[in-house]
This record gives sequence, C-alpha cells and structure tokens, in this order.
Amino acid sequence: MPFGNYWQREEVMPLNQLEELQLKRLRWVVRHAYDNVPFYRRRMRELGVHPDDIRRREDIARLPFTTKEDLRANYPFGLMAVDRSELVRIHMSSGTSGKPKVVAYTERDLENWINMVARCLYMVGVRRGDVFQNMVSYTLFTGGLGFHYAGERIGAMVVPSGTGNTEKQLQYMLDFGTTVIHATPSYALRIKEVAEERGIDPKSLPLRIGCFGAEPWSDNTRKRLEDAFDIKAFDSYGLSEMNGPGVAFECEEQNGLHIWHDHYFVEVVDPETGEPLAEGERGELVLTPLTKEAMPLIRYRTGDVTYIMDYEKCSCGRTHPKIHRILGRVDDMIVVRGINVYPSQIEHVLMNIPEVGDHFQVLITRNGSLDEITVRVEMRDEIFTGELEDFRRIQGKVSKALQTELNIRVNVELVEKGTLERFEGKAKRVIDLREEL
Amino acid sequence: MPFGNYWQREEVMPLNQLEELQLKRLRWVVRHAYDNVPFYRRRMRELGVHPDDIRRREDIARLPFTTKEDLRANYPFGLMAVDRSELVRIHMSSGTSGKPKVVAYTERDLENWINMVARCLYMVGVRRGDVFQNMVSYTLFTGGLGFHYAGERIGAMVVPSGTGNTEKQLQYMLDFGTTVIHATPSYALRIKEVAEERGIDPKSLPLRIGCFGAEPWSDNTRKRLEDAFDIKAFDSYGLSEMNGPGVAFECEEQNGLHIWHDHYFVEVVDPETGEPLAEGERGELVLTPLTKEAMPLIRYRTGDVTYIMDYEKCSCGRTHPKIHRILGRVDDMIVVRGINVYPSQIEHVLMNIPEVGDHFQVLITRNGSLDEITVRVEMRDEIFTGELEDFRRIQGKVSKALQTELNIRVNVELVEKGTLERFEGKAKRVIDLREEL
Repeated sequence: MPFGNYWQREEVMPLNQLEELQLKRLRWVVRHAYDNVPFYRRRMRELGVHPDDIRRREDIARLPFTTKEDLRANYPFGLMAVDRSELVRIHMSSGTSGKPKVVAYTERDLENWINMVARCLYMVGVRRGDVFQNMVSYTLFTGGLGFHYAGERIGAMVVPSGTGNTEKQLQYMLDFGTTVIHATPSYALRIKEVAEERGIDPKSLPLRIGCFGAEPWSDNTRKRLEDAFDIKAFDSYGLSEMNGPGVAFECEEQNGLHIWHDHYFVEVVDPETGEPLAEGERGELVLTPLTKEAMPLIRYRTGDVTYIMDYEKCSCGRTHPKIHRILGRVDDMIVVRGINVYPSQIEHVLMNIPEVGDHFQVLITRNGSLDEITVRVEMRDEIFTGELEDFRRIQGKVSKALQTELNIRVNVELVEKGTLERFEGKAKRVIDLREEL
Repeated sequence: MPFGNYWQREEVMPLNQLEELQLKRLRWVVRHAYDNVPFYRRRMRELGVHPDDIRRREDIARLPFTTKEDLRANYPFGLMAVDRSELVRIHMSSGTSGKPKVVAYTERDLENWINMVARCLYMVGVRRGDVFQNMVSYTLFTGGLGFHYAGERIGAMVVPSGTGNTEKQLQYMLDFGTTVIHATPSYALRIKEVAEERGIDPKSLPLRIGCFGAEPWSDNTRKRLEDAFDIKAFDSYGLSEMNGPGVAFECEEQNGLHIWHDHYFVEVVDPETGEPLAEGERGELVLTPLTKEAMPLIRYRTGDVTYIMDYEKCSCGRTHPKIHRILGRVDDMIVVRGINVYPSQIEHVLMNIPEVGDHFQVLITRNGSLDEITVRVEMRDEIFTGELEDFRRIQGKVSKALQTELNIRVNVELVEKGTLERFEGKAKRVIDLREEL
C-alpha cells in the first residue's frame, strides 16, 4: 500500500537509520550465508573472517567477493541457503558463454522483489488506471515477470506482450491506450521507426512514461526517446543475481538512480585490485543483497561500471543514495592502443549529433599491429540532403566529435537509414574482429 | 490454504448447496452484465428477458448466447463491465482468423483464477517441494501465467521455462529435478523423442505428474505418455474467455474432468439448434462464468464438443460434476461424404496400434466430387522390420481399425519416423485441401 507519494515508508527513512538497518541486515545475511552455504563458510575461513567480525559497516571489506564464475561453478543449486522445498521460483541468466547462472527465490524474496520494482514504477508515476505494456522477454529472464508482478501490485492494467512482433506491439499500444512501456531503449527506437513507417506520429500515442533498461544508454538517447514519443524516459537497473530489475531506478529528477539501500549494500571497487573506491570514483559496482533468503550473495561483482553520486537529499524526498547511470561493463570496455573506450561514450557522442540516426555499430579491427575503431552510423533521412559535400561535412563532424570524447582517431562510415541490424532485446553494438586474426 | 486433501473447501460442497450457490451467482452475474454492459442489455431486451426473470436454474435457457464473433466485434473493451481502472491484466487469444479476442481481469478475477488452477494442481498431487516446469507460452496466452501463479501459490518451485528449445528444456528437467510438467501432449512426445536421441530413458527422469492441455488427446495417448515417462498424465481444460486454464481438470480417477461449478454454469447444447441437451448427450459446451467481474460472458459458446457425465459422487470426494474429455471442436469436425469425423477419433485409433509412432497427419482432399481422407502415420522403428510384407500388414491393420471407428474408408500412408512436422504448441494435425479447388 502506498505511503503518500511513496510506495513504501522505507523510501524516506533517514539515512542514518538506513545505515543502521544495513548493518543489522548485513550481519544477518553474512551469518545466514556462513551457516547455510558451505561455499561461503569455506571462503570466509580461508580469509580468516567470521560473521561475528562484522561489527561496523566498513567491515564488509573483510568479506570475500562472489563472481559470476562462482555462480556458474555452483550450478544449479550450490549457493542456495535454504531447503529446496522453500524455493518457489527459478530464473536464469544466459550470460555470454558457458553454463547459465541460476537464481532462486523464496516466497519472502519474491515479496521483497515485487515491492522493490513497485517502488520504482510508483516513483516515476505509474498508478492504478495506467496501461502498462511490458515489452520484454517473460519466462526465465527476470525482466518480464519482475515488472509484470510489480505493475499488477500497483493496480495498473498489465499487458504482458513480451518481445517481438513490433507491428502487433504498436497495434496493442493503440488499441489498449498504453500509457507506460518497459523495453530496451533500442527496441523503443525500433517501435518509433515502425510507427513512422505506418504513418503514425509516435507523439500521438497516449504514452507518457517509458522505463528502459537491460542495456546502457545515454542522456542523448533519452532526449531522443522523450522527443519522439513525448514521454518521460527513466533508466532502470537490475540484474538476475540481485533478484532482477528493481535494484536502482531514476526518480523524476532523472539525475542518477536511487539504489534501495535497505535491500542492497553498495560498494564501488577498483576492478583490477578489488580495493574500495571513494564516492565519485568510477569503478565496478559490488552489491550485497541484504534480505535474500534463497541465495545470499556476498559482495557480488556485477561487472557494471558506475560511481556513487554525492549524497544530497534528493528533491523527490527519497533518502536512498544514488549511483550514476551505468557507464558500461567491465568486460565491454574496449582497450584500443592503450586507451579505454566504453561503447556508451560513443553512443553519447552520436546521439548528440542531429544528422545521425538512431542506430550505429562499432567495429574493431587490427591493421597490422595497429587496432582501429570504425563506427558505422545511420543517417537521418530528413536531414541529409544527399549531396556529396553534405556527406563529407557530416562525416567530418562525427569523426571530430568522437575524437574529442575518446582521445583517439576513429573511422566513420555513414550508411543509409535501415542498413544496420535492429534488435528486439539487448542491442549488440560492438563487433570485435581482432580475435579472428 | 489447503483444506485437507483439497485446495479449497468449496470442492466438497454438497451438490444441492453448490446448485443453490450457482443460482445465486447466476442472478448476480446476469444483473451485473445487464447493468454494466450495453451489449447484454440490448440482447436481453431483444429476447424480452430481464435479470429478474432468472428465478430457477432452468431459466438460464432464456438468456442470449455469446459467441466468439461477439468478442471480436466488441474488440477490445466493448464487453467490459467495470471501469478500465479496475482492470489489472489483459490476455489475448489469437484464434483462427480475424481480430484477436481480448480478455481482462480485475484483481478479484485473478484471485479466483489462481485458486481454480491451484485446485487442479493440488487435486493431482502437486505440493510444496515439487519442481514444476511450465512448458507453455507465457505473455498474452493464458496457459503460461495461469499455471505459473497457481504453482507458485501452492508453493512448488516454478521453472517458467516457456516453449521452445527442447534440448534445454530437457536439460532443465535433469538439472532441477523436475517432478511436474505442463505442456501440450504433442510437445511431451517431442521431449520423449529428444531424450531418446540423447540416450536418456525418459523413465529415468524424476517426473511424476504431467498436466496436458490446449489440444484434444485420447486415452491411448495418455497410456503412451504415462508409459514413456512413468508418470500419471492428467487432462487440463480451459479457455481464455473463461479466465484460461483451470475450468475443468481430471482427478486421480482419470475418468472425466471436474468442472468448477461454483465458478461456471455448465450447459451442453445442440450446436445446430442451440437447444439444451440432457446429461450424456454429446454437444457443444456452453459456459457462463459466475464470478467474473471484468468481463461477464453469458452462455458462452465454447465450440468444444463433450457431454456431461452421469452424476455419481467421485471417489476423490469432490462434488463438482464432470464433463467427458473434449471430443473435438465444433469447427474441427470434418464432414466427409456426409459423415462427421473428429480428429480425436483418428488419434484414439492410431495410438492404440503398437506399430504406429507418436505422430500423424490427416489430409482431406477432393477427388472429382468425392472427398477423401488420407492419414499419414509415422511408424515405430523398434517394431517395424522393414520387410514389405510387414509394411502391408501394418497398413491393412491401421486402415481396418480406422474404418471400423469412422464408418468410412480411409487411405493410409506409412512414413518413416521423423518425417512429419513436430509442434511445440498446439499440434496442427488436419490439413484440409478441399478449399483450394
């Protein structure tokens, strides 16, 4: 039940109380993992740390990390802390390679998860009476059922449309009067394109809120989505290992994502050394779920790069500190001639150039001993005149803007609208051809 | 919460009380439809019937029917009886052609629906501790989410695996120790096949219960499924217009499906005249949901052919009368040379012949002015010797058995195992080529 403008009272708990609660729950979850998961008991013994050693919040740094590889190695149920009969849900994350990662939930875990996602939806203004079209994959992926249950809990009319069949998705939006969508940003851009092909102005749809996640996207893409559909677009962050979506979400300020500190202990560490970093320093997000019964993961290395934003009480009134929107993934970082490049930086630059369309691709090749980046970008029909001179001007503009941001020379290929592959789920923008040599 | 061996107390309510409850609820739902759905007010006025005229159970026959065409004509929200802000879920049924049929739910509708499906699962022995792999489509189809919520409500571990990727489905069954599956019978036969290809004896899986629905299947197919996996196989019946699955389900007796009389008023009518038929007479099932708030459908013509079984208190203790498993669909009925043939009759015959494999296809062609049925059946490797004589013997046997059942001569083509198309959802067994002339 809502608490004024908030879904739950905990959202406005004073920060000092929130931190006290974190410590109390951290002590509980460490004890829970130690007592019930042999993997953690072994790891902690190796490091010479015992649950009783966790007395202050800082003591978390004494605990072992958990990695994706640990999840895979313990597939399927090696990290469960409760009896199998307590589990009521399984989800999976296919990841990039190898065995899938299995996550599981008790009834209470589900209940917590539903409320965390409901907080997010409620925060951006979703209410009873809204029509919520959930355009992501259902079944084993957490994004679909995670948002589905939360939308239902709030009392919105949930249209569980799933992925695919863009023509029909658009038809449902028209027929049901969809006011809120959940999708990947690239799929939303695809819907915009299909609408325009059918002669429908995306602005004319009754849509007012877009929740976008599952791939990193930039503020310039936000502007494009907001302008195209005449909506407010919000960034959603989550991962299966932390229940799924609902870990962190933007509020109306659209400046950083509140991360639910009563359920997650947040750290940012140096991805190389594992050393904790200070507020404002970019590094790998490390999360410890504080209430997870089925599968307590201690200091989970998310692989996502971000930083903790300066703490200032947010104008929305929520006390939970924010992280910056995800800058990229530790493994997505491209090292070219010794320089670190994130695909999100490229996106940020491109989406700020009016002549550039909504789709791009990044190719990395090796020319002799030299790595090269080639960025293929679709042009926007309505702006490009078709003149060779105009073509050269745009190419130069894109090239210069990328060089300024990345500190590296980049080849730019302009291609016609509709040339590059479209994606219904996570977009695959980077093609690294260097391994093929 | 379970009530002894039953999920809900209502399952064992004495029949006279159940019928009293039906009348009370029928009066409510007719009033609800009349007051809130202009379509029904108009229809009832046309027939000169008013909600106050419904005094006895028999009075239902005075009410108008609702057809699939009515649903399509009122797409999407024309038959809703509540404000849009009361709706919390949309499902759709694609049907065979034309506009989709939209169904909607209030919170209470969902709650009733979850409990009806939970009754079914609980009735066949699903409990906390079971691993329930739900191998049907999620999103807009009711089968996926319908069973998902019910399995979760019981406290089973739900694996929302959805359709497709049979290799992975089988791997999950092995890895998670799946004890209960929900699938179409034809997909379960496909899983059996894939298991055997991988050298896994389907009997060695920990599976103990199979819930099968969404396509008609025969008792002989049941025997095959039960033998193949060493399970008990139960027939599931439902349709989106009546919430979804959970309308009727077999109990341990495996002799007819209990249909939940506290939520559905059951009639069987002559598909031509619409006249009510007596117990035991085959006809079209007509259902009136008695508790549906969002979308009350009066006397809905399901298109499914069955009959009401003799009322005898079932050994399972449930008082809700049974219907026979669906014999076919009114529109599936093939009229060949004036004789009515249901694909389910063909299936029944074939699955009783040991030399015949699990897959078949029915072709209907016109030869001059004469309709012909050709049945293509896959043979079973392990029984067929490959000798021409053996081939002729089996062909003769199948042909004769079909002729005896159908009272019509049928061409039989024996084909090799693996020749015919496999289906992950509803199997399409009948190909009617007559329209192409």
